[in-house]
Amino acid sequence: MWRDLAPVGRSASSGGYFRQPWTSAESELRSWFAEECAARGLAVETDGIGNQVAWWEPSAGARPGDQGVLTGSHLDSVLDGGAYDGPLGVASALAAVDTLRARGFEPDRPIGIGVFVEEEGSRFGRACLGSRLVTGATTWEQAKELRDRDGVFLADAINAAGLDPAQGLLDFDRVGTFVELHVEQGRDLVDRDVAVGLASEIWPHGRWRFDFAGQANHAGSTRMEDRRDPMLTYAMTALAANKQARIAGQRATFGRITVEPNGTNAVPSLVTAWLDARASSDEALVTLVEAVERQAHDRADRDGTSLDVTAESVSGSVAFDADLAARLAGLAGWPVIPTQAGHDAGILSDAGIPTAMVFVRNPTGVSHSPDEHAETADCLAGVEALADVLAELARPGAPA
Amino acid sequence: MWRDLAPVGRSASSGGYFRQPWTSAESELRSWFAEECAARGLAVETDGIGNQVAWWEPSAGARPGDQGVLTGSHLDSVLDGGAYDGPLGVASALAAVDTLRARGFEPDRPIGIGVFVEEEGSRFGRACLGSRLVTGATTWEQAKELRDRDGVFLADAINAAGLDPAQGLLDFDRVGTFVELHVEQGRDLVDRDVAVGLASEIWPHGRWRFDFAGQANHAGSTRMEDRRDPMLTYAMTALAANKQARIAGQRATFGRITVEPNGTNAVPSLVTAWLDARASSDEALVTLVEAVERQAHDRADRDGTSLDVTAESVSGSVAFDADLAARLAGLAGWPVIPTQAGHDAGILSDAGIPTAMVFVRNPTGVSHSPDEHAETADCLAGVEALADVLAELARPGAPA
Repeated sequence: MWRDLAPVGRSASSGGYFRQPWTSAESELRSWFAEECAARGLAVETDGIGNQVAWWEPSAGARPGDQGVLTGSHLDSVLDGGAYDGPLGVASALAAVDTLRARGFEPDRPIGIGVFVEEEGSRFGRACLGSRLVTGATTWEQAKELRDRDGVFLADAINAAGLDPAQGLLDFDRVGTFVELHVEQGRDLVDRDVAVGLASEIWPHGRWRFDFAGQANHAGSTRMEDRRDPMLTYAMTALAANKQARIAGQRATFGRITVEPNGTNAVPSLVTAWLDARASSDEALVTLVEAVERQAHDRADRDGTSLDVTAESVSGSVAFDADLAARLAGLAGWPVIPTQAGHDAGILSDAGIPTAMVFVRNPTGVSHSPDEHAETADCLAGVEALADVLAELARPGAPA
Repeated sequence: MWRDLAPVGRSASSGGYFRQPWTSAESELRSWFAEECAARGLAVETDGIGNQVAWWEPSAGARPGDQGVLTGSHLDSVLDGGAYDGPLGVASALAAVDTLRARGFEPDRPIGIGVFVEEEGSRFGRACLGSRLVTGATTWEQAKELRDRDGVFLADAINAAGLDPAQGLLDFDRVGTFVELHVEQGRDLVDRDVAVGLASEIWPHGRWRFDFAGQANHAGSTRMEDRRDPMLTYAMTALAANKQARIAGQRATFGRITVEPNGTNAVPSLVTAWLDARASSDEALVTLVEAVERQAHDRADRDGTSLDVTAESVSGSVAFDADLAARLAGLAGWPVIPTQAGHDAGILSDAGIPTAMVFVRNPTGVSHSPDEHAETADCLAGVEALADVLAELARPGAPA
């Protein structure tokens, strides 16, 4: 499976992946998933926006009202991302079903393998858009106003991919438990010297758009003291965000920027930049972002520029089901660790579904990068762990 | 003429101009110029890259070997530029010919009206490309390697505009003197309370590309101390450039930037930014850029990033013909002032052509901006001044 996935959406220059939602690369991945399910005798259902699920039903058939165990992840990537973030969870879900069948396991509850669209928010800026729409965390009325960087509306992008939102969304009522396997995006498992861990919580996090406005002017003939240069306000803000996060032990990043007119010999009129901020508590996140905003406004006053800050998406802290994590950790003594990264698992947990995450060791901790990596032995340990988890959750007599 | 030019390449949102070379907007301007020349009975010559000239010959015909007086400017704009930078010089040249004819003036030497392409360097990054090629300051061998932001080679862009570099360039040997009228891009004339001035010199200036390389990583799960974030190195460098220029009384601007992968939730792998720097002497310019580079490298060391600096174009100081400026200033007592902006006039002066510039007052000093402006009365005063200058240079018995 890994060999089949390798070329899809890969950049020839960086080796990283551009698997943005509702592009040809993601359509290829959707077809790949459908074929993998079909090869296993599992019928795949694709909903109106591209979420997919295939259910392995108990041989006696599902009992009326029975809810199943869903596992899976996403296949889209950030811009120039790694191979593992998302696809490892999907491929491991398929491989775990193979493992369970090879063990002769017979599920007492349905086991589903799922793929959510636009988890990274790399195209429409709203992370976990697929799972948000399925759970109702985001409504279609809200989502349909979204546009990508080229100004394409969400519905038009979805239609262009041959899908139709009017066909409806995945039947979420069938999901009784959700388990997402994911490559770790830090080095906690490296520090603990283990291949696999479980998640305790997701840090609260969000994205804020900073619009710094000044006045375009000639880069040569305009005296320095006559300028209203928003690039300076931005530059100080980027440094301030980094410093605040370091002081507070939190995370703050300005990784995306657009500049108008973006000409070498013109002072810019507008700099728009996005702050990604994450903290260990909801209060700490508010404090962090307020501190950055305050420093940005102070500098704007000195630069003669103006600043508007818009919260584009903010996710509160997610505490995964502690009883479930403890029960699963008991299977093999896996550590239970927090993550600073958002996941569809957080959305499903917030929607009231008992949810767990299985992490696979990342030797460098690098993620959202062509350099993202996991060792094959660790990936195989992840598949075994996921199979054990599914067996525990779908065995006869398992707690609901 | 001004009313006809107003809509060409104008942005509906900003009111500014996008008149990039070898685009449809610039083709329209080229046609407009040819029609204006034809309406005056002047045959226009368009060379293989789009430079244009129309000569008003003495009624007795040009004497063998006679060189003429060329006036004119450019019609292209920076990205989202103003209406005056360039077109004012072309329209004023046409209007000055009208004025001379209305006065019954009969030139003893040919008077040419010219338009140079890609003066701003807004598409291929090389300012004054048209005049550089005509004078040989840049060779075609050097220029043909240039690409625009979309990767289009210069020759392909020129061909796509219906031109053919193989058709050759303007006959530069005909140019004995060059005069360029231009809106002022500072406020010296405002401070002196006069509508018109002449240029003494152009400050040395250039463009340097700074490539800051780090490592892409996850914006949430990567500890601040584990990052190699080139955005931080860039931000400090932008602030340092501003500070150095203020301290030294020079000019430094970072107005253009590109970021890879430019995703909200990823630490960037690469930030490329362009420094525009100008100073009152060649030595001061070297000192300024070296100071910025040094601080950038120091910060890169601390950030774990790397930095490459490439000088994309550097123009030494241009001293316009002082005798010529004094002679022309004597016509009406115009002040003679320096400029920090590059001009085709600087290229022609460097090529050994006696060259003068006529500046028209800019009430705010704002330039390279939709807000760029000049009062109509000042523009008309500029036309009269240019007509006086041309009459002095092309009158019977004028010094060569």
